[in-house]
Amino acid sequence: APLKIAVVPGDGIGVEVMPYGVQCLKTVASIFDIPLQFESFDFASCDYYQKHGAMMPDDWKKTLLPFDAIYFGAVGMPDIVPDDVSLWGSLLKFRREFDQYINLRPCRLMPGVRCPLAGRKPGDIDFWIVRENTEGEYSSIGGKIFEGTDRETVIQETVMTRVGVDRVLRYAFELAQSRPRKRLTSATKSNGISITMPYWDTRVVEMAKNYPDVALDKYHIDILTAHFVQKPNMFDVIVGSNLFGDILSDLGPACTGTIGIAPSGNINPDGKFPSLFEPVHGSAPDIAGKGLANPVGMIWAGQMMLEHFGYKDAAAVMLKAIENVLARSEPDVVTRDMGGNGTTKSFGEAVAGEIASL
Amino acid sequence: APLKIAVVPGDGIGVEVMPYGVQCLKTVASIFDIPLQFESFDFASCDYYQKHGAMMPDDWKKTLLPFDAIYFGAVGMPDIVPDDVSLWGSLLKFRREFDQYINLRPCRLMPGVRCPLAGRKPGDIDFWIVRENTEGEYSSIGGKIFEGTDRETVIQETVMTRVGVDRVLRYAFELAQSRPRKRLTSATKSNGISITMPYWDTRVVEMAKNYPDVALDKYHIDILTAHFVQKPNMFDVIVGSNLFGDILSDLGPACTGTIGIAPSGNINPDGKFPSLFEPVHGSAPDIAGKGLANPVGMIWAGQMMLEHFGYKDAAAVMLKAIENVLARSEPDVVTRDMGGNGTTKSFGEAVAGEIASL
Ligand SMILES: CC(C)[C@H](C(=O)O)[C@@H](O)C(=O)O
Ligand SMILES: CC(C)[C@H](C(=O)O)[C@@H](O)C(=O)O
Repeated sequence: APLKIAVVPGDGIGVEVMPYGVQCLKTVASIFDIPLQFESFDFASCDYYQKHGAMMPDDWKKTLLPFDAIYFGAVGMPDIVPDDVSLWGSLLKFRREFDQYINLRPCRLMPGVRCPLAGRKPGDIDFWIVRENTEGEYSSIGGKIFEGTDRETVIQETVMTRVGVDRVLRYAFELAQSRPRKRLTSATKSNGISITMPYWDTRVVEMAKNYPDVALDKYHIDILTAHFVQKPNMFDVIVGSNLFGDILSDLGPACTGTIGIAPSGNINPDGKFPSLFEPVHGSAPDIAGKGLANPVGMIWAGQMMLEHFGYKDAAAVMLKAIENVLARSEPDVVTRDMGGNGTTKSFGEAVAGEIASL
Repeated sequence: APLKIAVVPGDGIGVEVMPYGVQCLKTVASIFDIPLQFESFDFASCDYYQKHGAMMPDDWKKTLLPFDAIYFGAVGMPDIVPDDVSLWGSLLKFRREFDQYINLRPCRLMPGVRCPLAGRKPGDIDFWIVRENTEGEYSSIGGKIFEGTDRETVIQETVMTRVGVDRVLRYAFELAQSRPRKRLTSATKSNGISITMPYWDTRVVEMAKNYPDVALDKYHIDILTAHFVQKPNMFDVIVGSNLFGDILSDLGPACTGTIGIAPSGNINPDGKFPSLFEPVHGSAPDIAGKGLANPVGMIWAGQMMLEHFGYKDAAAVMLKAIENVLARSEPDVVTRDMGGNGTTKSFGEAVAGEIASL
């Protein structure tokens, strides 16, 4: 049976990078004879919102459920639709309602990429961020009282459940266990956020008992961001709450050169629902429409999708192709964020060509 | 009348760096004839907790209220007292109950300090972080239900009030207005944290109307941390919630070389309560007891205290002395975090000596 992929480009540069992600996937699929089947959707975009008054049709869940994965660009056009409306009406809905409770993001200093940190070379930075993806600070519950007065008070709840915390910790410990260094770092802030974060810490200690061979440490999020800059080589696998994982997985790719190349898997490990693969970068309204966006985050997200489907060899070839094109970093090929003057097209086609040639 | 300073060294390296802070302040005070009067307290430490079962005596507020300022080291010994207990029993109590609603932190690349970012030189990075310091994510309200079962659920509230948000924004806009670049950046996360953060954004827009000459922008916290690494020169004044300010003010100093030199003012601008000055670094149990801690954060915090008292000339001399000693960065003088093999003593005395010689 074919693997059905729902293509949801979204907004801004999401629409621009998507074709190259699909092109690369089609190229590798034809070489390895993988039965990928793509179907595109125009919802989960601010354009759609403007026409229909909602980010998605009512039956979006029924529409997407039969797919094996969602290949997602980026959402957000804050001048048209407020970010909380557009995101809670699309991406965050997918994560929550398709129970994609793992957000997995590699952070790797790749050959050919200029690192903003002094003296770091490819191989020095190579870790995974495992982010809780359905609860925590992204609760969407709370509200306002005494609105419009001096007593105005706004409350939002952070919610952690044992089920939610334990399952992401288990995934992170297992990932750490599968790696040579077997090292797990937990992000916390239990000194300041005095209820939810100490709870997180307790569950970490509890879970660690099942993984005695994993070397565990924990850092408060403030000093942890400092370590990203000062000793990024110390990390192997990092696990954090929804918000902390969000922050670390932008900071990490920034430390390795550019957010434009970073991918992300929103995974439902149980396989009950489709998982979603997307670049870490957003819709970037400031550069949208110019064809200048880096397509590698989108392409690499496709690579993670193949990996998720179990096509290890094809995924390895895709990653190798990305590495080769980055390593060469030809000025006419790579985009501005990497110091080149290439376009989404030149960069995307170079990776597709490299896949075909491997 | 003398200016009364409550000296509260706390734990770990707080105790070790404090004497040099006091020495530098005494040196500059004698030159400029400033009537500083110091009194030391052993509470607000885990030692005190072990003896008395509480971080502070019941009448701490009455005791400290008559002081003009609190000069604070660092608190925390997680192996002895859980961090949330020690911090909520001391530092966070000061901030909350003395209504120190501004946490002000400079972030400056100083001469002589090795910058972990490639190609940045002194002067390239020079901004202030204004952190809300009494509410937000550090709410201390919430709780647990179905404890010990699979349904276990833990909730913590983030609380923002119009009063709390507006006063920190006002302070930040005014600081920005007083600087040549007149630029303010607001940290948000309104796409994900969908109730409190959009509220923050709304108040920013409202407040901006009073400061038409201030150039305002806003970034989600995730991409903002990325910009710290990739373009730290773009910032002038940054304002953020309690948690976001906390994160940014560790990341910022890390980007400028070492957290060991960064100071922090916890300010009650109304003057109803004493303000508190402390280094940004913590008690650092891992290096405590060795005399190897960098004393500059503590000394610079003293400099901010003088500035707060209105002694501009004396404060300028202290800052110049810090700069000179950093610029020379003699290996036998400066501490390990700055690539030297000096001690707290050699470094602290060098700054005191430099003050005396200016
Ligand atoms: C020690 C801790 C509670 C504190 C905070 O989170 O505010 C510290 O990190 C700081 O930045 O002053
Ligand atoms: C767009 C936004 C809601 C999202 C998040 O905060 O999760 C993004 O930053 C991400 O990291 O995927």
